Amino acid sequence: MEVVVKCARCGTERRGDELRCPRCGGPFIIEPQFPYRERARENFPYIRRWISLGEGNTPLVELEGVKFKLEFLNPTGSFKDRGSATLISWLAERGVKRIAEDSSGNAGASIAAYGALAGMEVEVYVPARARGGKLRQIEAYGAKVIKVRGSREEVSRAAERSGAYYASHIWRPEFRDGIRTLAYELGKEAQGQEIYLPTSAGTLLLGVYYGFKHLLDSGVIQEMPRLIAVQTEQVRPLCAAVKGEPYAPPKRVTSVADAIVSTNPPLLPEMAEIIRRHGDCVWVKDAEIGEAWKWLAKRGLLVEPSSAAALAGMWKRGGKGIVVLTGSGLKTL
Amino acid sequence: MEVVVKCARCGTERRGDELRCPRCGGPFIIEPQFPYRERARENFPYIRRWISLGEGNTPLVELEGVKFKLEFLNPTGSFKDRGSATLISWLAERGVKRIAEDSSGNAGASIAAYGALAGMEVEVYVPARARGGKLRQIEAYGAKVIKVRGSREEVSRAAERSGAYYASHIWRPEFRDGIRTLAYELGKEAQGQEIYLPTSAGTLLLGVYYGFKHLLDSGVIQEMPRLIAVQTEQVRPLCAAVKGEPYAPPKRVTSVADAIVSTNPPLLPEMAEIIRRHGDCVWVKDAEIGEAWKWLAKRGLLVEPSSAAALAGMWKRGGKGIVVLTGSGLKTL
Repeated sequence: MEVVVKCARCGTERRGDELRCPRCGGPFIIEPQFPYRERARENFPYIRRWISLGEGNTPLVELEGVKFKLEFLNPTGSFKDRGSATLISWLAERGVKRIAEDSSGNAGASIAAYGALAGMEVEVYVPARARGGKLRQIEAYGAKVIKVRGSREEVSRAAERSGAYYASHIWRPEFRDGIRTLAYELGKEAQGQEIYLPTSAGTLLLGVYYGFKHLLDSGVIQEMPRLIAVQTEQVRPLCAAVKGEPYAPPKRVTSVADAIVSTNPPLLPEMAEIIRRHGDCVWVKDAEIGEAWKWLAKRGLLVEPSSAAALAGMWKRGGKGIVVLTGSGLKTL
Repeated sequence: MEVVVKCARCGTERRGDELRCPRCGGPFIIEPQFPYRERARENFPYIRRWISLGEGNTPLVELEGVKFKLEFLNPTGSFKDRGSATLISWLAERGVKRIAEDSSGNAGASIAAYGALAGMEVEVYVPARARGGKLRQIEAYGAKVIKVRGSREEVSRAAERSGAYYASHIWRPEFRDGIRTLAYELGKEAQGQEIYLPTSAGTLLLGVYYGFKHLLDSGVIQEMPRLIAVQTEQVRPLCAAVKGEPYAPPKRVTSVADAIVSTNPPLLPEMAEIIRRHGDCVWVKDAEIGEAWKWLAKRGLLVEPSSAAALAGMWKRGGKGIVVLTGSGLKTL
């Protein structure tokens, strides 16, 4: 067996394409059973035919001593394309024709694009109040947008129960698994460094972690880089969990960082475990995000506020390292 | 001498940094005096320190038998970044601190970003009626936007006479020259192919042509690819010139292809010469552009309408080849 798919909580192996562990409800993870391979795609042996828009291999630029990984230059304008490529390729091979996803943001846009490319019917479930550039982007790819009243959890439930194949970017391990390539590209560059990651539902954190773990287990790198999750004042359940701080989520997230919205992330235990062992969590205020956003824009890097949060987090900690700029500022102009 | 800079019309060599040939008013071009070098940057020996955001090396993806070069995934969302990198790097080395450019579109945004990165004061002159995503993008990088009443030519004159260094993307040969890298990246892939290029002021056409000429002169490729310029019903001076068709420019360009606007391009003689010898020109209607735009979006490629025009042009000619997707659709959502 080239990869093992098992529950991150109880270790139960997955038999088919179950969304959650039937035993404990935990998320599945994919573990490669072979040493890292130089050609990126060969690290995903469960995919034979790629549905690809040329994602990955984004620039790494150094400005004033800080390295920035420009993930916003992926095909749909965010790092999510790495995960959509693997998930949608895998689903296409299984003959899936109609999918549902819940996200009014970068994940929704990315799944809509790759789903369209694979010839699938795509339904994207969004909160009733969702609007803006990302929603127009989702519609531009031809996806059907379905507005749902109620909490974020209710939107997810509507997608899961829609009758279409639930292509959740959070629960499907084939999505998170695609983000391993980001760690591969940083590779040795990341050794001994702090990697700053805007963190909401944890797909980036988990994906990058398992990529570095693969490199470490393969002897390509000798130590795990420090993974620094950055959250916001309003949305900081991970920081609260690892630091034992009190946290009461707001009724409605109004922060400028509108891609950091998971006040109650389903994968919180897995995120917290990684951060406790290999990193830190820091949260920033909107004013700090605004400062970082301006600093970046004045240097030609137009990102969405949620991405600028990662730089603000680095400033706040007084650290130095690699900042992952996750999403395009052209969506929020 | 590693490069010769001379007038494209009368051959007069440039002595310093003149904008136009002092003898005939023609545009300058840069001719490398050495065979093509594998490392892209070494083909620009007049630059020692690069002002770079990681431009270039964009994906080439094949969909349904057509190859698309995803130039919209450059750092500011268009191919212009290749030219801004070389022009701004060169100006920074010369100690230029304040620049002026005239463009309310992709060139303005790109020059604004790279100028900001170089620590320059950037003034962007735009027509009084300009608005939309690209203008907000220019402002986001911190450039000063100056609205000018009157024709497009009057906007250019205002920039040229501003007192700031005139960093014209059309006239400065160091801008066009940077676009050689696009041809280098296509390289052998382009041999025997038609390359479809949305064409307005001609920076893309001229830049790509000189890149391929360098490869041809160096023996890397054995024949010049066919360069197919694509224009619109409203803006087709190049097609008119090479086909001898009548053409009366509209009072105001209202086409959805809002990046194809040069009704009277200053470099028309050079563009026409290249097309007569090595290619063809085709123009398309808004409805055809709309069809092509939708075709691309339904396959996950969100581009601006002007970029979709290139695909529409390919369909209209019944040709097949490589389509250059020049600008991001996120700017025009």
